[in-house]
Amino acid sequence: MEGSLMPQGKPETVPQDGLTTRQRRNRPLTMVHTGPMKGKSTAAFGMALRAWNAGMSVGVFQFVKSAKWRVGEESAFAALNTVYETTGQGAPVRWHKMGEGWSWIQRPGHEADHAADAQEGWRQIQRDLAAETYRFYVLDEFTYPMKWGWVDVNEVVHTLENRPGAQHVVITGRDAAPALLEHADLVTEMTKVKHPMDAGQKGQRGIEW
Amino acid sequence: MEGSLMPQGKPETVPQDGLTTRQRRNRPLTMVHTGPMKGKSTAAFGMALRAWNAGMSVGVFQFVKSAKWRVGEESAFAALNTVYETTGQGAPVRWHKMGEGWSWIQRPGHEADHAADAQEGWRQIQRDLAAETYRFYVLDEFTYPMKWGWVDVNEVVHTLENRPGAQHVVITGRDAAPALLEHADLVTEMTKVKHPMDAGQKGQRGIEW
Repeated sequence: MEGSLMPQGKPETVPQDGLTTRQRRNRPLTMVHTGPMKGKSTAAFGMALRAWNAGMSVGVFQFVKSAKWRVGEESAFAALNTVYETTGQGAPVRWHKMGEGWSWIQRPGHEADHAADAQEGWRQIQRDLAAETYRFYVLDEFTYPMKWGWVDVNEVVHTLENRPGAQHVVITGRDAAPALLEHADLVTEMTKVKHPMDAGQKGQRGIEW
Repeated sequence: MEGSLMPQGKPETVPQDGLTTRQRRNRPLTMVHTGPMKGKSTAAFGMALRAWNAGMSVGVFQFVKSAKWRVGEESAFAALNTVYETTGQGAPVRWHKMGEGWSWIQRPGHEADHAADAQEGWRQIQRDLAAETYRFYVLDEFTYPMKWGWVDVNEVVHTLENRPGAQHVVITGRDAAPALLEHADLVTEMTKVKHPMDAGQKGQRGIEW
């Protein structure tokens, strides 16, 4: 019985959108994790873990400058990709990071150009969405290239609104643009109540990275 | 160079606690994810994923009534435990859930007694903390048995304050008690800004569970 697998929450209203319950249930979701606290990406990778288990292919795009960040998650998801390849459990995972240059562009001998890199990454995401390459996308820290004007937020919203199929997208980062929040189905704000760094605590491997 | 692996954040103050930087860095952390929004457990499992990759053994204790919840996470972490057992990458993961009866108690023929189950679960956690069974504990929805008076919050704080070694503990759930928040090193509140269930959207496999 599928009903018995449903979580506790129930819709408060039934929308007049002409969709069946099944259509609504399989609707692609845009999710944004924003706010000043650190759990934004962590929660996004927790969602990716659940998606992986449900057999959804996962594409991660890291819009950060340092390839050293999220090494823990990258390594764990590489292990999960191997689980999929060897046992069939879960789904494929592909991991792209801007810090090392996107894997699909080669510009030997050129200076780093973060704005161009971010734009190239976004173009690849557009191609992947058009081709329905993945079922679940993590666009990690993607709010920043939008904030800095490297990627046009209205183009992002337009692309997301018109993407085919049932591809879920979660976007993380501070200062998400109002147009993106307006488009999103789910917005979670992580608020810092108390953090060990306030008390002079340094980051720890396995906790902070 | 360990320094090059450090994340962006830097302590704002250096505490006068007589500890060396190394001691402070390896200090056991108590983390609480609370607030009305759903990402609390998801972020905790995202942290567990990172801990697993850093070679920390993970113990999960689910204080929920239904064994159907978090099936995605449980299955994914079972796969990660298998990765550890077959390749040595990561660390062992053990998963305990109250809904099916704790694995260490057998009471055939007895009625369910959630208060007694919660108390038994907490006693096991106390034994595991004393024995340093795990390096990273997820006490999922553990705020509720405290809220309902099944487990004494002052006893929990006392146990956590006096635990040996460098065992990290993350506790999730709404309405965390003030005494627990006072003890915690890190408190994150997940705030709902926008949720698809508000618009009549039903839960989806791979997204909600």
